[in-house]
Amino acid sequence: MSSNEAPPLHPQVEPIAFLLGTWLGEGKGEYPTIESFAYREELRFWHVGKPFLLYTQRTWTLDDGQLRHSEMGYWRPVAGGRLEIVLAHPTGIAEIQEGTVSGGRIEVGSALIGLTGTAKEVTRVERTFELHDGVLAYELRMAAVGQPLQAHLRAELRRQD
Amino acid sequence: MSSNEAPPLHPQVEPIAFLLGTWLGEGKGEYPTIESFAYREELRFWHVGKPFLLYTQRTWTLDDGQLRHSEMGYWRPVAGGRLEIVLAHPTGIAEIQEGTVSGGRIEVGSALIGLTGTAKEVTRVERTFELHDGVLAYELRMAAVGQPLQAHLRAELRRQD
Repeated sequence: MSSNEAPPLHPQVEPIAFLLGTWLGEGKGEYPTIESFAYREELRFWHVGKPFLLYTQRTWTLDDGQLRHSEMGYWRPVAGGRLEIVLAHPTGIAEIQEGTVSGGRIEVGSALIGLTGTAKEVTRVERTFELHDGVLAYELRMAAVGQPLQAHLRAELRRQD
Repeated sequence: MSSNEAPPLHPQVEPIAFLLGTWLGEGKGEYPTIESFAYREELRFWHVGKPFLLYTQRTWTLDDGQLRHSEMGYWRPVAGGRLEIVLAHPTGIAEIQEGTVSGGRIEVGSALIGLTGTAKEVTRVERTFELHDGVLAYELRMAAVGQPLQAHLRAELRRQD
């Protein structure tokens, strides 16, 4: 195989192959400690022939197009319909999320949240993704800065490629 | 500022601005539990005008060009000459490294290592980076799979852009 040829998809990645590509959409955020906000979002999932997908995410403020959040990491389907996600955040947070993937639905929650010395206190994150009629919808629930687990983000995205 | 114009470098990033760009080089790996190996490596550091650098890393086996390891994350200089690094690994490892940056020298060690349910046991990682005469050299020491902290990786890279 030449180095310019894309490697075949690793069979272990099949359960989340529906995520491959670039997704664009809009979302809304809320939390008791901040003003609610709307955002534009891009998700990218790609593979390199190994048993994981690479992932990057970016959001922009809807009104002025300012870059807001970003994150990146790896999505690892493992045996028994399980999924492990390893994420790095520029806010000083490292996350391990674990859960299940079944059909077009993914449910994961915090197995670990690591914080740098200067990071905001986040204690639990739960994410649900669902692909339905070409729309990838997700919800993110978060416990942070002394607040109990509750809705924080919700967005809908469509594949661009 | 138009959206096509690069934002100015955030002043907080200045202490590690010497890393910006794409670096290519070769390294050697060793550990008591594996055969020693040689690798080709690419590091990329870039910024988006925020107080961190984005980082991706890839290595290839030197003899057959097979993709070997990759990692990605964010490098956050903070007050007092300190540096926080948040990393995700496709091997199911999330890392927070903290330490110091002074001149062209960076010394960081594990503040936290998070492992997914299926990840190999890694208990401590220390990294040293030094830029000297245009060569970025690093050493990585690791305690893993029951072995004490010891030399694991050493590489030298040169900027490509």
